[in-house]
Amino acid sequence: MIISMRPHATREEIEQVCERIREYGYKVHSIQGEERVVIAAVGVGDVTACLESLEAMTGVENAVRISAPYKFVSKEFKKERTRVRVDGAEIGGDEFVVMAGPCSVENEKQIIETAESVAAAGAKVLRGGAFKPRTSPYDFQGLELEGLKLLAKAREATGLAIVTEVMSERDVETVAEYADIMQVGARNMQNFALLKTLGKCRRPILLKRGMSSTIKELLMSAEYITAHGNPNVILCERGIRTFETATRNTCDITAVAVLNELTHLPVILDPSHATGKRSLVPALARAAVAVGADGLLVEVHPCPEKAISDGAQSLRLERFHSMMRELEPYIQIWKESRLTAAAATV
Amino acid sequence: MIISMRPHATREEIEQVCERIREYGYKVHSIQGEERVVIAAVGVGDVTACLESLEAMTGVENAVRISAPYKFVSKEFKKERTRVRVDGAEIGGDEFVVMAGPCSVENEKQIIETAESVAAAGAKVLRGGAFKPRTSPYDFQGLELEGLKLLAKAREATGLAIVTEVMSERDVETVAEYADIMQVGARNMQNFALLKTLGKCRRPILLKRGMSSTIKELLMSAEYITAHGNPNVILCERGIRTFETATRNTCDITAVAVLNELTHLPVILDPSHATGKRSLVPALARAAVAVGADGLLVEVHPCPEKAISDGAQSLRLERFHSMMRELEPYIQIWKESRLTAAAATV
Amino acid sequence: MIISMRPHATREEIEQVCERIREYGYKVHSIQGEERVVIAAVGVGDVTACLESLEAMTGVENAVRISAPYKFVSKEFKKERTRVRVDGAEIGGDEFVVMAGPCSVENEKQIIETAESVAAAGAKVLRGGAFKPRTSPYDFQGLELEGLKLLAKAREATGLAIVTEVMSERDVETVAEYADIMQVGARNMQNFALLKTLGKCRRPILLKRGMSSTIKELLMSAEYITAHGNPNVILCERGIRTFETATRNTCDITAVAVLNELTHLPVILDPSHATGKRSLVPALARAAVAVGADGLLVEVHPCPEKAISDGAQSLRLERFHSMMRELEPYIQIWKESRLTAAAATV
Amino acid sequence: MIISMRPHATREEIEQVCERIREYGYKVHSIQGEERVVIAAVGVGDVTACLESLEAMTGVENAVRISAPYKFVSKEFKKERTRVRVDGAEIGGDEFVVMAGPCSVENEKQIIETAESVAAAGAKVLRGGAFKPRTSPYDFQGLELEGLKLLAKAREATGLAIVTEVMSERDVETVAEYADIMQVGARNMQNFALLKTLGKCRRPILLKRGMSSTIKELLMSAEYITAHGNPNVILCERGIRTFETATRNTCDITAVAVLNELTHLPVILDPSHATGKRSLVPALARAAVAVGADGLLVEVHPCPEKAISDGAQSLRLERFHSMMRELEPYIQIWKESRLTAAAATV
Repeated sequence: MIISMRPHATREEIEQVCERIREYGYKVHSIQGEERVVIAAVGVGDVTACLESLEAMTGVENAVRISAPYKFVSKEFKKERTRVRVDGAEIGGDEFVVMAGPCSVENEKQIIETAESVAAAGAKVLRGGAFKPRTSPYDFQGLELEGLKLLAKAREATGLAIVTEVMSERDVETVAEYADIMQVGARNMQNFALLKTLGKCRRPILLKRGMSSTIKELLMSAEYITAHGNPNVILCERGIRTFETATRNTCDITAVAVLNELTHLPVILDPSHATGKRSLVPALARAAVAVGADGLLVEVHPCPEKAISDGAQSLRLERFHSMMRELEPYIQIWKESRLTAAAATV
Repeated sequence: MIISMRPHATREEIEQVCERIREYGYKVHSIQGEERVVIAAVGVGDVTACLESLEAMTGVENAVRISAPYKFVSKEFKKERTRVRVDGAEIGGDEFVVMAGPCSVENEKQIIETAESVAAAGAKVLRGGAFKPRTSPYDFQGLELEGLKLLAKAREATGLAIVTEVMSERDVETVAEYADIMQVGARNMQNFALLKTLGKCRRPILLKRGMSSTIKELLMSAEYITAHGNPNVILCERGIRTFETATRNTCDITAVAVLNELTHLPVILDPSHATGKRSLVPALARAAVAVGADGLLVEVHPCPEKAISDGAQSLRLERFHSMMRELEPYIQIWKESRLTAAAATV
Repeated sequence: MIISMRPHATREEIEQVCERIREYGYKVHSIQGEERVVIAAVGVGDVTACLESLEAMTGVENAVRISAPYKFVSKEFKKERTRVRVDGAEIGGDEFVVMAGPCSVENEKQIIETAESVAAAGAKVLRGGAFKPRTSPYDFQGLELEGLKLLAKAREATGLAIVTEVMSERDVETVAEYADIMQVGARNMQNFALLKTLGKCRRPILLKRGMSSTIKELLMSAEYITAHGNPNVILCERGIRTFETATRNTCDITAVAVLNELTHLPVILDPSHATGKRSLVPALARAAVAVGADGLLVEVHPCPEKAISDGAQSLRLERFHSMMRELEPYIQIWKESRLTAAAATV
Repeated sequence: MIISMRPHATREEIEQVCERIREYGYKVHSIQGEERVVIAAVGVGDVTACLESLEAMTGVENAVRISAPYKFVSKEFKKERTRVRVDGAEIGGDEFVVMAGPCSVENEKQIIETAESVAAAGAKVLRGGAFKPRTSPYDFQGLELEGLKLLAKAREATGLAIVTEVMSERDVETVAEYADIMQVGARNMQNFALLKTLGKCRRPILLKRGMSSTIKELLMSAEYITAHGNPNVILCERGIRTFETATRNTCDITAVAVLNELTHLPVILDPSHATGKRSLVPALARAAVAVGADGLLVEVHPCPEKAISDGAQSLRLERFHSMMRELEPYIQIWKESRLTAAAATV
């Protein structure tokens, strides 16, 4: 921790700060600058509590932590990339994994038709919402259990793994029974009660970045899950909220590169929510491969104009197929660079 | 709904859009502009579903709803202000209500001392966290049940009503047993599972605005609670997330005035989280009275530098007392204008 | 400066950083933490250049300055409040100063009628745009010189001082001839060529905060003007750009309180641009008085629905009069607290 | 234009709105909805003025324009892509153009060494600042004329075209004498006086997006330049300002795809300012090629740790060379897709 005192802090105030730091078990290094005193606290202790306490003291301008607030998810803790394995796919490994499907599971025909089509195009995981977080209480809230059963049918029919959202602690067990990967939606990224429950669960978790969450907060939420026992977390950039209204969200594509520097966890990108507009999805999908994401989460619907939700950002089946073909040469380069990187670390 | 077609939309595309609108039970008014066709849909139907469908159709540039998406919380639905009553206070009525207390309940001495002091200064409700949403899994998570019991003791000792946060559906019953008002924190504003559960509960709810939620989304979350049966919702502006880093959040004080135009629900302001800095709290509290809020939610601690959380933004007891005195003349004007307004509507 | 090295920085990298710091004339204090080395640089030198250099070095995680980057505008430099005097008004002194008038000067009748009305209601300064910054090249760009002459006529007729925007270095001399206060618009807050020219000018400057500028950047732009010779700067909060769309901008009212802590310069608030909506202006104006601003900048028009620009946020003359009456009791409290504060510093 | 009346707007208010619309030369289509009246205005007229007027009228909830506010820059106006030609490069054509060089021109050795190196690696344009917009008046403001002369020398030595910033109307002529492309910095994107002057100039303009400007505002600023006579505008996405602090700015990469849908002007991306961190530049550069940008603007320095400005985000020469090699396969795919697209439009 580095504590900057105010320019005119008294000798007594400085002494009290040093005393407090020592109470928390740290060593004190006090430096007299031209304008003010700066104090460094070195050692191991309860950083957050100590910082909170120092920031509240008279004479203190601010107090900042230097060390990262997360541990299990950091590259310092574990150097090799985490590979999350599900039936038929490994996220974070040597393959670029595409997860695709409708926003909501609507009926058997819709989900089976979509599953077969995206499987044929090369997707490895089927997405589909059974529990839907909707801004309005009057909007369709999902088929719930019935939706989960339809997803299971689609898995049987195609061999695709299933990813679907869980919105409530109460549903964790039920959803875990049907899903291969359990998704935490952007609005629940800091629903800590849910994160703790998922930490005690064995299923891989797809954790979406909250729409106004920092990269550090995303990692802290992943740390909640891992610290409670579940190391299989996939991170997902899906656009953040900014002043720009031309797109539904602003895709922070650089976050993928930042996360690749900070964590060993796999990172995928959702170009559908990031843009909100079907015509922009393929360009962003190409960029996601190039920037070094581990995969994509894409909304696809056999008939977007009849979709119950997110039709405007859902690709038609044909367009999904042609996009997958467009991605091929990029994925080829992606694979080569993964192999090169792997060889370099041997 | 107003649907703008793309400039070169074909006759067929336009016809399909009109057809779809009629399928949803609306009447169609098509207007040929200089550049494009614009279509108005009039009537009653499932607006969201219809919009989603239209936005996904070829030839459509965008589709926007004209009517407000909420009902129970709107002034159109209910003209007179909602007054939320708890023991010893009425929020939304003729008194400006101050809720004050520590961020976390830490121990009996701390909470009782604070309760007695804020009561003496004129606060009517005691705030204090027993379940704490923390960014880090390693930070203090609250005294939980023990904290609730201490709050109950403080109520007995002072007669203050209690407001405390509930973070999980599972805890709703327990918290409802001890609290007079149940708080939904900013991070849970769109935890829809929690909102539904609270809608079935009888306790008044203090709903904090999410840090990147729009005013409309705040109202939609309040609509979740009211639509599920609980009309006693207090809204709280507590600062939103922006690029500015001089303060912890950016207080959107105008939101209070906007909400007063749109809804009959009471609106209070939290100057502690909005600023993150003790020295800025009194100025913002004065502004809150002047702008027309119904009350304040303020963090106060007998010894902020020993607080487990939020010490930097907590007022000392003496400063809270002097702030309450500073607020007096403002509250006097506030009361007169409420009476004038009430008289005008008779 | 505090320089945090990366966790695995080599001994050589650390030595090079220390060497570089010394080259810039600072003393080095190196602290060995649990995880990494942190280096403090103490002394006087070219901070920015040194920081830039250090941040680019291998092994450096980040480098932050501790001292404030501004000097002339800070309270450390000058304790007593700056009072900016113009004919008939003093901003930053013992009076709360209201500046009011139309967005654009449109014609003689409009500006004289408005001037007379706002003067009668208690305004001390007339605002009115002659050079208009417009997002579109096809929109009305202002009456330019003709507008300045009409403003001068209005001053003669009413005795009000004049504030008007200057958009270009080329116009500085001309505008200075007619205006009592020269306004720098939000879009030009970091037009450094303009700021330098205004620094060499004797007229007081009204510097509006850029819509995505931090408080620190606002102070740095004020520092440009003062460092180039002109100490008479009035700062103006006018709302920042955020994700919220219910209002034209988001008024960062706390910025007024923050600025009052950091600088001796007067700070006023523009509730018209901050809200974009006439009905919200009076509530925000009351809050501005309460929070401790030195004055207001308000858009007023005799017939807003015929205004060439900003009609939706312009008050009608009658409403401006009634708002001024509503503000009276607040201004009364404001004056008393100024006198108390002044007495306290004697 | 679509005008939504308030739910309880009176018959008289509606009639006045219709009347006003007709005064501006539009035809009126009034639609009676369930909740309110909506009015469509069709025709050709002064949209902005009419909208401003309507929004200020009693009974009006809001008024929105349907047609795009720009003309010359839109694809509706001109279908084929604009190709901006300078010596040795064509931006917007069949080649992906890399512009590279230091943030500031510092001395002859630095600029010549960099120019030779980036030319050898495949860059076609040399960037380098002679006039520097700096947040602080105390920071290095550029070598000015001397810097321009050094850039000219570097052009002679290498054949590279030159892009450099112009900050003031007064410098336009001088800069135009030396530069092949004149850059408008992010802070000046809405310096309309400067834009108008550049519109009368013959040199191509590189227009950087303001850090809180929308895509529409960027296009409007380009419209200023083209409407004043200069059609050679290159747009540049360089990151916007958001709440995220892990990177200097947030790169809105989707903006490239959006602009490719809306305008015929070339669009390049600046991964250096977008990230602020050297290690993130190559990943973002790859993404820029993949998303469909026309080129890159990259900061490169022979010795970043001795750079006067932006050292932390400047690539070393060797890293720039290796990045250019990494980009090759992506640029290969880029070229093929350009050719395919060109063939498809024949």
